[in-house]
Amino acid sequence: MTNLPDIRVGSGFDVHAYDDDAPLYLAGLLWPGEPGLSGHSDGDAVCHAIVDALLGAAGLGDIGGLVGVDEPDTEGAASTGFVRLALAKLAAEGFRPVNVSVQVIGNRPKFSPRRDEAQRVMSELVGAPVSLSATTTDRLGFTGRGEGIAAIATALIAR
Amino acid sequence: MTNLPDIRVGSGFDVHAYDDDAPLYLAGLLWPGEPGLSGHSDGDAVCHAIVDALLGAAGLGDIGGLVGVDEPDTEGAASTGFVRLALAKLAAEGFRPVNVSVQVIGNRPKFSPRRDEAQRVMSELVGAPVSLSATTTDRLGFTGRGEGIAAIATALIAR
Amino acid sequence: MTNLPDIRVGSGFDVHAYDDDAPLYLAGLLWPGEPGLSGHSDGDAVCHAIVDALLGAAGLGDIGGLVGVDEPDTEGAASTGFVRLALAKLAAEGFRPVNVSVQVIGNRPKFSPRRDEAQRVMSELVGAPVSLSATTTDRLGFTGRGEGIAAIATALIAR
Ligand SMILES: [Zn+2]
Ligand SMILES: [Zn+2]
Ligand SMILES: [Zn+2]
Repeated sequence: MTNLPDIRVGSGFDVHAYDDDAPLYLAGLLWPGEPGLSGHSDGDAVCHAIVDALLGAAGLGDIGGLVGVDEPDTEGAASTGFVRLALAKLAAEGFRPVNVSVQVIGNRPKFSPRRDEAQRVMSELVGAPVSLSATTTDRLGFTGRGEGIAAIATALIAR
Repeated sequence: MTNLPDIRVGSGFDVHAYDDDAPLYLAGLLWPGEPGLSGHSDGDAVCHAIVDALLGAAGLGDIGGLVGVDEPDTEGAASTGFVRLALAKLAAEGFRPVNVSVQVIGNRPKFSPRRDEAQRVMSELVGAPVSLSATTTDRLGFTGRGEGIAAIATALIAR
Repeated sequence: MTNLPDIRVGSGFDVHAYDDDAPLYLAGLLWPGEPGLSGHSDGDAVCHAIVDALLGAAGLGDIGGLVGVDEPDTEGAASTGFVRLALAKLAAEGFRPVNVSVQVIGNRPKFSPRRDEAQRVMSELVGAPVSLSATTTDRLGFTGRGEGIAAIATALIAR
């Protein structure tokens, strides 16, 4: 019999409405000329879904407990910092990420031209392979009507 | 080369509309003063998503096949019983849960004050770590309009 | 300490609107008498979600990069071919699927009568256990209004 390594799976989902007056931060990148996302922080739904997937895998709560979303010093904060906070919480329990898979659901931005760049940035940030894919919802639902973006993430972690 | 242990991943998704005249059962807890969820059973979307994630991982069908949803004796039934039925089906095939990660998507109830309690109850029920997180959808879609709750679960199992 | 095998998790999500004038292809099966799905290919959301989950796990992009969706020779193409293309990309990197769990979200078709058949066809196609479950969204959202189908897939791969 093979001993089972201590691995865990986690899932995270996040949604933000578009805010035409904000810059777009998504997957740790600034996307000039694209409508931004609303939210107390920079609204980076990819980072937020990754945080919830990592914390969920480790059983360490969620992004709402990680950062006081109403605290002044998180206003406009770079969500890459939230990912670093989550990783530190995992490390304190002896966990490390194995890989994360994220899908962006929405009409904008067109993701594929910068997918490789985004994957590089997020993989370096997480310290493990992060894959990014993108899809639309065939004009259905709030993403199909162009009201906002959803991100769904699944993470595998180990210790 | 390391032998791969026999592990499998599964995903489950469930939605219930609010029913103001019903008590709220969610994640195995009764939430006094909160709008309930519609459904033939107690409408506990967290339990239902966990059942589908566990059965999906093992390839043993879904909650619709586990319980006759139209059968009189499941009317108002506690969904924790469905989780036990799913675990029994897994055990009969030699599978056991490794961990489950669930996210509740909706405006109500405010989840964080009772997250630890809910995690304890669900982890004890499943016999493995169950993590619970909660998010909203920035006022978008049916969850954002306060029409209902969604739950998304990912499970890892082994034998 | 147990060496961790090289395993990865991936998630995929896909949506297609109903097209009453098209035949329904779903999970590699033709469903006579059911409303079809729109799309440049045959619109098989189950196959597409599986492709994105497999590619996402391996960090090999998504279905949009796998097939030129605007290319004439993918018009009406059988999506089972896209799954084969994804598996070939994984194999070229030394990856193989461990299992895939897919949930179909929508009012039509009634999935349970043909679930076993669909699981058999998809498992043979993927070369690993593929489980299929189905759920509705309690009349909420675009799936609840009968506008389309969503499919959510989680894949485990190894090398
Ligand atoms: Zn967010
Ligand atoms: Zn349910
Ligand atoms: Zn598709």
